[in-house]
Amino acid sequence: IGDFPGHALPGVFFFVIGLWWSTKSILKYVCKKHKQTCYLGSKALFQRLEFLEGIAVVTMTLIGIIGLQFFAGGPHLIIHNESPWKRVLRLQHLTLYFFFGLLGVASILCSTVSSIPVSLIKLMMSNAFFVESFIFYNHTHGREMLDIFVHQLLVLVSFLTGLMAFIEFLTQKNILLELLRSSFVLLQGSWFWQIGFVLFPPGGRTAWDLLDHDNIMLLSVGFCWLYALAFIVIGVLVRTKLERERETIEMQYNKWK
Amino acid sequence: IGDFPGHALPGVFFFVIGLWWSTKSILKYVCKKHKQTCYLGSKALFQRLEFLEGIAVVTMTLIGIIGLQFFAGGPHLIIHNESPWKRVLRLQHLTLYFFFGLLGVASILCSTVSSIPVSLIKLMMSNAFFVESFIFYNHTHGREMLDIFVHQLLVLVSFLTGLMAFIEFLTQKNILLELLRSSFVLLQGSWFWQIGFVLFPPGGRTAWDLLDHDNIMLLSVGFCWLYALAFIVIGVLVRTKLERERETIEMQYNKWK
Amino acid sequence: IGDFPGHALPGVFFFVIGLWWSTKSILKYVCKKHKQTCYLGSKALFQRLEFLEGIAVVTMTLIGIIGLQFFAGGPHLIIHNESPWKRVLRLQHLTLYFFFGLLGVASILCSTVSSIPVSLIKLMMSNAFFVESFIFYNHTHGREMLDIFVHQLLVLVSFLTGLMAFIEFLTQKNILLELLRSSFVLLQGSWFWQIGFVLFPPGGRTAWDLLDHDNIMLLSVGFCWLYALAFIVIGVLVRTKLERERETIEMQYNKWK
Amino acid sequence: IGDFPGHALPGVFFFVIGLWWSTKSILKYVCKKHKQTCYLGSKALFQRLEFLEGIAVVTMTLIGIIGLQFFAGGPHLIIHNESPWKRVLRLQHLTLYFFFGLLGVASILCSTVSSIPVSLIKLMMSNAFFVESFIFYNHTHGREMLDIFVHQLLVLVSFLTGLMAFIEFLTQKNILLELLRSSFVLLQGSWFWQIGFVLFPPGGRTAWDLLDHDNIMLLSVGFCWLYALAFIVIGVLVRTKLERERETIEMQYNKWK
Repeated sequence: IGDFPGHALPGVFFFVIGLWWSTKSILKYVCKKHKQTCYLGSKALFQRLEFLEGIAVVTMTLIGIIGLQFFAGGPHLIIHNESPWKRVLRLQHLTLYFFFGLLGVASILCSTVSSIPVSLIKLMMSNAFFVESFIFYNHTHGREMLDIFVHQLLVLVSFLTGLMAFIEFLTQKNILLELLRSSFVLLQGSWFWQIGFVLFPPGGRTAWDLLDHDNIMLLSVGFCWLYALAFIVIGVLVRTKLERERETIEMQYNKWK
Repeated sequence: IGDFPGHALPGVFFFVIGLWWSTKSILKYVCKKHKQTCYLGSKALFQRLEFLEGIAVVTMTLIGIIGLQFFAGGPHLIIHNESPWKRVLRLQHLTLYFFFGLLGVASILCSTVSSIPVSLIKLMMSNAFFVESFIFYNHTHGREMLDIFVHQLLVLVSFLTGLMAFIEFLTQKNILLELLRSSFVLLQGSWFWQIGFVLFPPGGRTAWDLLDHDNIMLLSVGFCWLYALAFIVIGVLVRTKLERERETIEMQYNKWK
Repeated sequence: IGDFPGHALPGVFFFVIGLWWSTKSILKYVCKKHKQTCYLGSKALFQRLEFLEGIAVVTMTLIGIIGLQFFAGGPHLIIHNESPWKRVLRLQHLTLYFFFGLLGVASILCSTVSSIPVSLIKLMMSNAFFVESFIFYNHTHGREMLDIFVHQLLVLVSFLTGLMAFIEFLTQKNILLELLRSSFVLLQGSWFWQIGFVLFPPGGRTAWDLLDHDNIMLLSVGFCWLYALAFIVIGVLVRTKLERERETIEMQYNKWK
Repeated sequence: IGDFPGHALPGVFFFVIGLWWSTKSILKYVCKKHKQTCYLGSKALFQRLEFLEGIAVVTMTLIGIIGLQFFAGGPHLIIHNESPWKRVLRLQHLTLYFFFGLLGVASILCSTVSSIPVSLIKLMMSNAFFVESFIFYNHTHGREMLDIFVHQLLVLVSFLTGLMAFIEFLTQKNILLELLRSSFVLLQGSWFWQIGFVLFPPGGRTAWDLLDHDNIMLLSVGFCWLYALAFIVIGVLVRTKLERERETIEMQYNKWK
C-alpha cells in the first residue's frame, strides 16, 4: 500500500518470522545432537510450538486483511470513490495475506492431525512465497524505473525463499538449507524497509531520483549488504545458542558430579 | 479455437481430469496406509483403473481431433477457403491433442505390458504438458496485450504441471507432489474458463479492454484466486476421503465386535 | 555453413547417433533383465562398444574439422579473401566439433582406463550439448526473424539434451531418461534437415518468407511433429528389440527342451 | 576497476584458486582410493589444508579491500572529488570481496569447530559466486554493447560456478562435479584476462570496436576456447597426479620386496 508504514509493517513481520524460524531450526539441531541433555527435547514441545506458530500466522494475516479494509483506503468496508487501480492493489495484498494464512492453517493441521505428512508445511511455505513473487511481478505495471527495480529484487528474494522451501520439501532435513531460507526471509524484511525509505522517504527527506541508473547500482549493493546483515544476524544467533548449549551441558556435568 | 465453447470444453476436460487424478492419489495413499482394512487395496484394481483412464484419455483426444476437423472450421474435412493463420491454429490444436493421446497410450501400455517401467506415465504426462506450454508460447504472435497475457499464464501453469510431473518421474512417490500437480491441472481447467470469459464474453456482456494495464493486474489476482480455489477443492476431497475412511474402519471394528 | 548440405550432414550425423544411443540403451536394459539368457550380457562387450563409439565420434569430428577447412570456404587451408563474418562462423563450427571430439575422447578413456568414473561420458555429453546451445545462441546476430527462430529451437533442443545428460550424470541409471535424451538427439537431427529446407530450399523450390509470423507458428507445429516422429521411431525400436528378445528366449527354451 | 591490472589481478586470483581446488579434489580422490598406501591420507591433514586455505582467502580479500581504498581511486581513504558512479563501482567491488571473505571465514570455522557441518563451505562458496553474478549483472548499466556482453559471460560463468557448488552442497561427494566447478573457476580467471585485453588493450594496441556484432560472435568462440583450455589444464593435472600415484605405489611395492 502506497505509504511508508505500508512497507514497514510487512518488513517487521518478515524480520520477526525470519528470526523465529532461524531460532527454531537451531534449537531443533541442537536438541537432536544432545538428546539426553536437552531439556526441551521432547517432540511434543516442537509440535506445540508449530501449533502456536500457526495460530500466530493466521491471526496476523487476519489482522492484515481487516486492517487493509478499514485503514488503508478509508474507514469503510466498501470504498465508493476508489480508483480501479487502487482496488486492484488492495485485492493483490488480500491475496498475498490469504496464501500466508494458508501456511498458518497448514501448520495448525500438521500439528493436530497426525495422518497429514509434515512436509505439507514446507510445501505451503514455498507456495506462499512463490505466489508472493508472482503477485509482485505483476505489481508494477507502468511505474518508474527505480520503483520497478526495487520490486524486482523483492520478486527475486521471495522467489529464492520459495525455491529453498521447495528444495527442503523434496529433500531430507538440512539445517543449513533452513538457515539459508531464514536468511532470505530476514533479507526480505529489511528490504521492505529499504523500499519504504526509497519510495516514501519519511520525515521530509529528499526523495530518490527514480530515473537514475547510478541509484540502481547503489541499491543492488545495498541489497547485498542487507543480505550480509542477515548472515551476521544468523551467525550471532547460532553463536549464542551454541554457547548456551555448552553452559547447560557444563551445568549438568557439575550437577552430576 | 476462437470462441467461448472452444475454451470452455478443454476447461471442463482439465477440471474433470484434475479431480480424477487427485481422487486417485488420495485413494492410493489411504489404501497404502490401511492395507488390511482397505476394501480396494489390491494392486490389480489400480492397474485396471489406469487402463480405463488410458482408454478414456485416448477416446477424448480422438473426439477432440475429429471435432476439430468437422465443427471448428466448417463441415468439411478439407476446408477450402481457410486463411493460413486459421489452418496453423488448427494444426496446433491437433498436435496438442496428439501428445495427450500419447499419454493415454502410455497409460494403456503400462497397465498391460509388465516389462515397461510404470514411470513412463509420468514422463509422458510431463511431456504432454511441456509440449502444451511450448505450443501456447508460440500461439499468440501479433495479438493484443491482454490476450497474450492470459495465454502466458496458461503457459506458466502448464509448464509448472509438466515440471511437477517430471519431478515425480525422477523422485519416489510423494502424495503431496501429486496433489500439487492435480491442483495445477484444476487451475488450468478453471483458467480456460476465465480465458473464455475474457476474450469471448458470452451473452452479450461488455468486452474487456484488451489494452488496459489494470486488467492485467486484476487477472493476475484472479489467477491466484482460482489457484486458491483449486486448493480448497482438493482440501474438501481429502477431508471427505479421510472421513469415509474413518467410517469404514469404525464399521469394520463394529462388525469385528 | 550456409548451404543445404551444411545442414543436412550434421542432421544425418545426429539422427544416426540418436538411433545408436537408443539401441544401446534398450540392449543394456534387456540384457540386465535377462542376465542368464542374454547372449551379449558380458560387461566387456559393452565396454568394447563404448570404445568403438569413441573412435567413431573422434573420427567423424576430425573429418568434420578437416572438411570445414578444405571444402566449406574454398580449396585452401588458409583462405585469403574471406569476410571476417564467415571466418567467425567457421571458428564456431570448429569449436562445436572440438567439444564433440572431447566426448569421443572421454568414451575412449572410460573404456580403457579403469580408474576414471564412467559418468565422465555423461558429463562430457552434457557439456558438448550445452556448448552447442551456447554457440548457436550467439550464432544469429543480425539475421532475419525466421532464421533466428529456427536456430532458437535448435538452441532449445540441444539445451534440453544437455540438461537430460546432466540429470543422468547426477542420478542413477534410468532407461526412460536415456531414451528421452536419445529422442531429443533424433529431434535435433531431423530439425537440422528442416532448417536446411527452410533456409536453403533445394531444387529451386520457392523460398520461405522469412518475415511472416504465420511461418513461425507453422514451424513450431512442425517441431512438435518431428518430436512425435522421434517418439515413434524409439517406440518401434523398443518393440522390435522386445520381440527379438522374446524369440530368443523361446528359442532357448526350445533348445533346452 | 577500470584498467587492465584491475582485471588481470582477479584473473590471476581465480586461476590460482581454480588450480588449487582441482589439485585438492584429485588428491582427495586418490587418497580415498588407496587408503593404505597414501602418505597423506590422514583426515587431519586435509583439515589443516582447509584451515590454511581459509586464512589465505581471508588475507587476499583483505588485501583486495585495502588496495581498493588506497590505490584504485587515489591515495586517500576518503576520496573527495569522486564521481558517484565511480563510488558505486568501488562499493560493488567491496561487497564482492566481502562475500569471498565469508567463504574464507567458513573454511576456517569448519576446520576448527567440529559441530559445524562441513557442507557450510560449499554453501558459502555457491553464495559468493551467486552474489558475484548478481553484482556483475547490475554492473554495466549504460555501457557499450561489447562491454555488456563480456560482463554477461562473466555473469554466466560465475552463476554456473555457484550452481555447481550448490549442487555439490545438496548431493554427496562427486569428484567430477568438483572438477567441473574448478574448470569453471579456471575459465573465469582466464576470462578476466580476456576482458582486460578487450576493454583496456595494454601496450598501445588497437582497441576493439565495441559496437561490432562480429566481435560478439568472435568473443563467444574465444569463451569456448578458454573453457576447452580449462579442461586441458585439469586433464594434465589429473594425469600427472595419477602417474605420480602409480610411481609411489610401485616404489612401495619395491620397498616391500
